[in-house]
Amino acid sequence: MERRNSRMQLEFVEVTMEEGTSSDSTNLHQVVPPPYKSSLQKFITKIKEILFPDDPLRQFKGQPLHRKLILGAQYVFPLLQWAPTYSFKLFKSDLISGLTIASLAIPQGISYAKLANLPAIQGLYSSFVPPLVYVVLGSSMDLAVGPVSIASLVLGSMITEEVSPTAQPDLFLQLALTSTFFAGIFQAALGVLRLGFIIDFLSKAILLGFMAGSAVIVALQQLKGLLGITHFTKKMALIPVLSSVFHNVDEWSWQTIVMGICFLVLLLGARHVSIKKPQLFWVSAGAPLLSVIISTALAFAIKAQRHGISVIGKLPRGINPPSADKLLFQGDHLVLAIKTGLITGILSLTEGIAVGRTFATIRNYKVDGNKEMMAIGFMNVVGSTTSCYVTTGSFSRSAINHNAGARTAMSNVVMSVTVLVTLLFLMPLFQYTPNVILGAIIIAAVIGLIDIPSAYLIWKIDKFDFVVMLTAFFGVIFISVQLGLALAVALSVLRILLQITRPKTVMLGNIPATNIYRNIHHYKEAIRVPGFLILSIEAPINFANITYLNERIYRWVEEEEATIKENVCLQFLVLDMSAVSTIDTSGISLFKDLKNSLTMKGVAIVLVNPLSEVIDKLKKSDDGNDFIRAEYLFLTVGEAVASLSSAMKRKTPTME
Amino acid sequence: MERRNSRMQLEFVEVTMEEGTSSDSTNLHQVVPPPYKSSLQKFITKIKEILFPDDPLRQFKGQPLHRKLILGAQYVFPLLQWAPTYSFKLFKSDLISGLTIASLAIPQGISYAKLANLPAIQGLYSSFVPPLVYVVLGSSMDLAVGPVSIASLVLGSMITEEVSPTAQPDLFLQLALTSTFFAGIFQAALGVLRLGFIIDFLSKAILLGFMAGSAVIVALQQLKGLLGITHFTKKMALIPVLSSVFHNVDEWSWQTIVMGICFLVLLLGARHVSIKKPQLFWVSAGAPLLSVIISTALAFAIKAQRHGISVIGKLPRGINPPSADKLLFQGDHLVLAIKTGLITGILSLTEGIAVGRTFATIRNYKVDGNKEMMAIGFMNVVGSTTSCYVTTGSFSRSAINHNAGARTAMSNVVMSVTVLVTLLFLMPLFQYTPNVILGAIIIAAVIGLIDIPSAYLIWKIDKFDFVVMLTAFFGVIFISVQLGLALAVALSVLRILLQITRPKTVMLGNIPATNIYRNIHHYKEAIRVPGFLILSIEAPINFANITYLNERIYRWVEEEEATIKENVCLQFLVLDMSAVSTIDTSGISLFKDLKNSLTMKGVAIVLVNPLSEVIDKLKKSDDGNDFIRAEYLFLTVGEAVASLSSAMKRKTPTME
Repeated sequence: MERRNSRMQLEFVEVTMEEGTSSDSTNLHQVVPPPYKSSLQKFITKIKEILFPDDPLRQFKGQPLHRKLILGAQYVFPLLQWAPTYSFKLFKSDLISGLTIASLAIPQGISYAKLANLPAIQGLYSSFVPPLVYVVLGSSMDLAVGPVSIASLVLGSMITEEVSPTAQPDLFLQLALTSTFFAGIFQAALGVLRLGFIIDFLSKAILLGFMAGSAVIVALQQLKGLLGITHFTKKMALIPVLSSVFHNVDEWSWQTIVMGICFLVLLLGARHVSIKKPQLFWVSAGAPLLSVIISTALAFAIKAQRHGISVIGKLPRGINPPSADKLLFQGDHLVLAIKTGLITGILSLTEGIAVGRTFATIRNYKVDGNKEMMAIGFMNVVGSTTSCYVTTGSFSRSAINHNAGARTAMSNVVMSVTVLVTLLFLMPLFQYTPNVILGAIIIAAVIGLIDIPSAYLIWKIDKFDFVVMLTAFFGVIFISVQLGLALAVALSVLRILLQITRPKTVMLGNIPATNIYRNIHHYKEAIRVPGFLILSIEAPINFANITYLNERIYRWVEEEEATIKENVCLQFLVLDMSAVSTIDTSGISLFKDLKNSLTMKGVAIVLVNPLSEVIDKLKKSDDGNDFIRAEYLFLTVGEAVASLSSAMKRKTPTME
Repeated sequence: MERRNSRMQLEFVEVTMEEGTSSDSTNLHQVVPPPYKSSLQKFITKIKEILFPDDPLRQFKGQPLHRKLILGAQYVFPLLQWAPTYSFKLFKSDLISGLTIASLAIPQGISYAKLANLPAIQGLYSSFVPPLVYVVLGSSMDLAVGPVSIASLVLGSMITEEVSPTAQPDLFLQLALTSTFFAGIFQAALGVLRLGFIIDFLSKAILLGFMAGSAVIVALQQLKGLLGITHFTKKMALIPVLSSVFHNVDEWSWQTIVMGICFLVLLLGARHVSIKKPQLFWVSAGAPLLSVIISTALAFAIKAQRHGISVIGKLPRGINPPSADKLLFQGDHLVLAIKTGLITGILSLTEGIAVGRTFATIRNYKVDGNKEMMAIGFMNVVGSTTSCYVTTGSFSRSAINHNAGARTAMSNVVMSVTVLVTLLFLMPLFQYTPNVILGAIIIAAVIGLIDIPSAYLIWKIDKFDFVVMLTAFFGVIFISVQLGLALAVALSVLRILLQITRPKTVMLGNIPATNIYRNIHHYKEAIRVPGFLILSIEAPINFANITYLNERIYRWVEEEEATIKENVCLQFLVLDMSAVSTIDTSGISLFKDLKNSLTMKGVAIVLVNPLSEVIDKLKKSDDGNDFIRAEYLFLTVGEAVASLSSAMKRKTPTME
């Protein structure tokens, strides 16, 4: 009785099925093979789905030629979508928001250039040309373009590893521009090759941890300026910076510290006001410029340098000089420039696209990721030839742009023109701006990157994501920005691979008085069907999980056999395949192995609702295993159980 | 009409639902939240599933203490499972098979040691101690343990990269033993940490391509011996080897070539006979030893060395000398030894476990992967202290062992004793064995690693797997064994990640006269329900695919809206979540984003059969989005459509 003759049983089932199909044909629904598609067709479909999920040519379908041309031009230059209907009313909004972000962009530009160990003027250059390029090519209406803190930090720290910004300032600048060039090429290439999904691997959890960590690192770097230390470490990580701070206590300048703390309080206060009352956005938007003006006037009045307060010094007047001749395509540092370009490229891309998408969702328009990549990439390539370093859409300035009522990308033009005026006429005014104020501006800006409530939400929803976030945070603080990020991404990918390696298999039971079968550990009312083991496999089956699935399913069967009741021993293993979206050659072998080991036990395998790819491949590999014969295939678990139960009932008496 | 007031509509649905629940409560099945589990419980369950899918403690449950002790001892030493019932009848079978594999193991051992650039005697040492260790710890009854071709090749080529086997033979041997030690430690660690699933990443397709490529490389290396070339490249890849062969035509020795070809024909002929008639397994099993005996006698008779035929030369007599003092745990080459250990360790593990599983399936017993890893690992650690280099279960010898009727691991003891007798008394006989014969034996052995029919089956079933196979094959041939393997694994993992990044979403339709909803592109009879867009998401939702899913679903909705018929505009997006087995924080945000953009279009989102993890996390993140309120949740698509249709029908007249 324990070991039944499996062949006999299988034949029995067959007979019953044939009877079934003749009499109950209206109740049983056949699993049909999918419509035929050649390998080439499948390949094209797959490539389309991988590279063109948004089907960008869709809008061109069925349009007359001139319309196609217009749509094509609009596709390449999104400016053409809104420029024709641009009105004075829209311009009024854009003018206000443009001036608002300019008042923020000028002090931040100078500060971030310092953060990247570049001359302050580079920050203003980078706020002039790139916005103009973006206006023509970009599709976001809210993005405020210019240098950003994280990319500046990473660019500066990576190049500083090989070249000293103080000993070799020219080479340093050349490498920064070259890195910007490679960043742009890389960004545009991702867009052209439609590989934009690569940035999706920087998940929200990673970004949260990474930005908070960067904020800490950036803020710590400002201790140099805030404390007036002259001999400061070139390293970025927490420990060398803190040790540098406390080993140079004799260099601390109390005048600098007092000034820094006063303005930091002012800036943080302004930020607080704007957070509490969003309509007062102009308070935090204007505070940095106001601080610069006051502190510069103060420094000029008290002759700050005599009191140990360092100032920016003379800045050149005039617009961006061309810099194509400064790009280095050979020499010892080429690899460094490419590496820096890749990393700052991907970081600035992530920030720019995340910001663009956020505001597009709020205002309900669409931002095309791949197109944005091309826009940002081209902007950086152009930037690298006009003395600009890496730029993208900034989190903080875009938010203020949006709050200030920007309607189109024209606000970037307004900002750019304001920067132009500054470059042409106002540069001498910055001569006496104290460095300490730049540090205060940066700290006030990056504090906004630390988002505790979101971190708490992640903790609540998903502990593993929280661990990923902490990895990014501590990795950035204690090791380095690049390695912290890489660790967190590796951890996320590892998790996905683990999920693949250990797919869920759940036991289904019948929900009484229905044909519905659900997880018996979730739906307590679901009951098992005697003689059946119904499992749902909830993942693609592939080389990475067949060993596990084989062991796991075998264990389910053994456990089920150990709990036999009422003389009905296990006869059918029903595998619900609804969730097995893909399968590979190893996956196919799982069924053969399972069949081999279960036939010995007298258990027949029945497949329910295999999807087209699975049917297809089972068919192709069929060498007498018969998995795709109708008597082993059912469209729903309910039908499988109904049909097979009748076979079983008729059989039991003959066995006893 | 185009833009309906979504709030109004949602309220309408709500009302209908409330009516529904009061009157039709018997027909509607509630989606209930899963039973409560604390984070710790979930964590423990997950760890259990990842590390202990086979639940090794299961057999101990409910047993008395002394039985537990016996089971425990049997678990650690599988020998205890079969030894107590071992009989003379079993021994007769094991004796025959043991002698058969010994006759193969002796010539192969010498040959493979040469392949690894080690003294020939190491091959015999390695066929003596490791089998004895495996007998006690291993759970396979068919595995024939000893040195194998691929691990020998990789070990030899990796160490040769830094140390010359001819210039520094002692250091070379020390490094080989040290690598063996690290291989063993690594293998045992994988088993102890229960990380055995790592070898699952070497899929069947990769192994096929890799083994075929290795066979080509190994065979090419034998050209040195077969042609009698003395100045041969140390590189492994195709191009340097061929160039080495044809740049040294003046060194070719015709006597060697004639002898080599004769014996190669003999060996391949014997192999052919055994393949055609498996009961004649002893023909191919005995052929190598016969070749060695004949060729040695011949070489002795004609004084081969005078004719330019090189011979093995004097071999030391006696058993394995201890070699623990030869292990190097410091010095310049430590990193190399660790690296070599890791790679040969994982390769030999893969071979050993694959072979063990294959025969276990045929004879219907179970081989525990993690336990096998510990057995093989411990065997190599012991081996490294007794002058043995990396060993594992060999493909070819295990097959012959099985065909020769081996019943238990005792056949390994018989083989080991035979090797012992050889070591003690027969070593002088090998003095005149020509090197060319070893080359012929290796070629005849590795040709069996090229499996064209399986490659064709892979081509038929899955084109991508075929590409992975080719990558492994050409990578091994043209670059190196390690890189070829790494490339193929990277490609396989990339595919999995791509599948994750581009999950399938399919549109479901109703199969007429049923409650069943299936892919309308697969089941042609399935029809759409007006006003509904029913999508099934067939993958976990996570950070890597939310952007894609968002875009793809939005495109479905837009396309659906473009094909509005009969005045019924799209009102419900029904997402069948049955296949969404896991979700992360990013995945949760997908629903919020979708809801934001679809509410504007007046389309409500309905979830069908979300699994416990999804319900759980949606609930935790709930901040007024209401995804887990009953009116948006249904247990089946059929129930969702039925309930919501009635709501819609009542509404349509008021709209017109």
